Amino acid sequence: MAIKLAGKQTFVLQAPPSFAGHACIVGKKEGEGPLRDSFDLISADPFLGEKSWERAESALVKKAVGAALDKASKSFSDVNCVFCGDLLNQCTGTSFGVRESGIPMFGVYGACSTMAESLALAAMTVDGGFADTVLAVTSSHFCSAERQFRTPLEYGGQRPPSSQWTVTGSGAAVLTAEGPGPYVTHVTPGRIVDNGVTDANNMGAAMAPAAYDTLKAHFEDLGVGPDAYDLIVTGDLGAIGSEILCDFFAADGVDLRSKHADCGLLIFDRKKQDVHSGGSGCGCAASVLCGYLLNGMRAGKWQRILFTATGALLSPTTTMQGESIPSIACAVVISNTK
Amino acid sequence: MAIKLAGKQTFVLQAPPSFAGHACIVGKKEGEGPLRDSFDLISADPFLGEKSWERAESALVKKAVGAALDKASKSFSDVNCVFCGDLLNQCTGTSFGVRESGIPMFGVYGACSTMAESLALAAMTVDGGFADTVLAVTSSHFCSAERQFRTPLEYGGQRPPSSQWTVTGSGAAVLTAEGPGPYVTHVTPGRIVDNGVTDANNMGAAMAPAAYDTLKAHFEDLGVGPDAYDLIVTGDLGAIGSEILCDFFAADGVDLRSKHADCGLLIFDRKKQDVHSGGSGCGCAASVLCGYLLNGMRAGKWQRILFTATGALLSPTTTMQGESIPSIACAVVISNTK
Repeated sequence: MAIKLAGKQTFVLQAPPSFAGHACIVGKKEGEGPLRDSFDLISADPFLGEKSWERAESALVKKAVGAALDKASKSFSDVNCVFCGDLLNQCTGTSFGVRESGIPMFGVYGACSTMAESLALAAMTVDGGFADTVLAVTSSHFCSAERQFRTPLEYGGQRPPSSQWTVTGSGAAVLTAEGPGPYVTHVTPGRIVDNGVTDANNMGAAMAPAAYDTLKAHFEDLGVGPDAYDLIVTGDLGAIGSEILCDFFAADGVDLRSKHADCGLLIFDRKKQDVHSGGSGCGCAASVLCGYLLNGMRAGKWQRILFTATGALLSPTTTMQGESIPSIACAVVISNTK
Repeated sequence: MAIKLAGKQTFVLQAPPSFAGHACIVGKKEGEGPLRDSFDLISADPFLGEKSWERAESALVKKAVGAALDKASKSFSDVNCVFCGDLLNQCTGTSFGVRESGIPMFGVYGACSTMAESLALAAMTVDGGFADTVLAVTSSHFCSAERQFRTPLEYGGQRPPSSQWTVTGSGAAVLTAEGPGPYVTHVTPGRIVDNGVTDANNMGAAMAPAAYDTLKAHFEDLGVGPDAYDLIVTGDLGAIGSEILCDFFAADGVDLRSKHADCGLLIFDRKKQDVHSGGSGCGCAASVLCGYLLNGMRAGKWQRILFTATGALLSPTTTMQGESIPSIACAVVISNTK
């Protein structure tokens, strides 16, 4: 029996790695939202001085990595490996972002759940004794995502109320074997859940059952409930998905609502910012985690959070072929104590 | 200092996991090549009974996973997690392939190096004490790759001599904590190397420097040379890339050539099969590993091999934007003894 496996799918880390540094860089719209004070840099220029949105996204990654390493007092050569991924085809947002770093790389893909997946694998690599210093970074950019997944920006396509707004942002975290915390203590990887939703403009509805599945497994594996956490934060379920998730738990007699928050709802002010159901994208969960959430933990606002990023594993091709949307959620426990 | 880190970037597994089962499924053309006897199933129908090439690719994944689990006498519920990835946008080839399995999933992306990356992370997850049974699977399909990366198949685009032929195939491997071997004993993740090649029809030239970088690091980290292995097998450098790689080592006074083979050259007969520089795709290294190579190790043909899959981290968008091709190679030592 695996020594670090609790129940069916939760990994219990024995030597929880510590966040040695974390940083987030976002675009103008995010910088006008409620979390504006938590970002390390807000770029007024959507191109970040680059000639394409794709290059701009990679520039976000470079800046986030640089800032996180600075805070950790580490350089590229101190990092044993990096886990990274993003929404762009073939994950070029992050791979082009780290290509000059010389850091051994593991590319990952979990759609908007990628930050939790990267963090999970980074933590497991340190806890497993393979590395002392590991980086996790993800990104998204509204403009590169729109033209790849939806319509050219110039087309000005109408957005239904259930749609979400892809965050322009990148979050990076440095994990080390030793340190004062916060620590990654548990990881619950997700199973794919597909309840048959085919509307690519309603990702929250597609992803909520995956978040429910992973959270339920996590609670069962550890024999706990929502009360074990000060905050249970999903990635980007938005307004609709968050409602569905809390309803699912309510039907089980479990009160998730009082502990639940969603990065997609935290990052924008839906009343003023016209983002419909909320924010989304790999950069959403990443930039909220690497600013607001981890800063809040360091300040003692929360002692123990369950970070559960969610991803819709669709592509424009699968949507055009009429496929439903397989979704996934990966949960990571972050605690101020080991 | 991390207890399992040798030199700069090689992980030394302390409790090497064992291959409990492995299987590969390929298309008709691969089934007509030199390795025909090593495949578990050869599908004469490029659609595998499905209505699209994308669904066909996912069907390859399903069949490979099923066959590997059968050989390992395992069922879906025995598998703690799966590492999988492929070339399709948003990695839908494999995610749709495993979506009904209920196995917790980590999606990975390393272009054609994905099988080595999946295997590396699967082995580290078992060695790290997190899981007893982990699956690694990747895929590619000539038709889904052509229409996504190049031109519609019906267009009949001319292929330059340096181009490679995407393998239609999937390979799956089940690793377990206990077993009689072969074992995964070491992992050397790759750094991104980009020497400025911009020709997306010459991936071998783009990837060879990455293979050189990873192999050189591996040899230095462990203080060994090519003689430590019975076979050093790259993923899909093809004829041109293989020549460049061996030349690089020759310039260092190291004879790699006598130990080197390449999955892209092994899987097709270039004289008869019109594949130009050789085979490629995530399914190339995967189907050669999970048939010919692991079967050969079990039969005692080789005792110790260095499996080094290579990937070109480009996308059609980066190519159109004039970017050069960042490449990566991940090396995994497979040995009949711990």
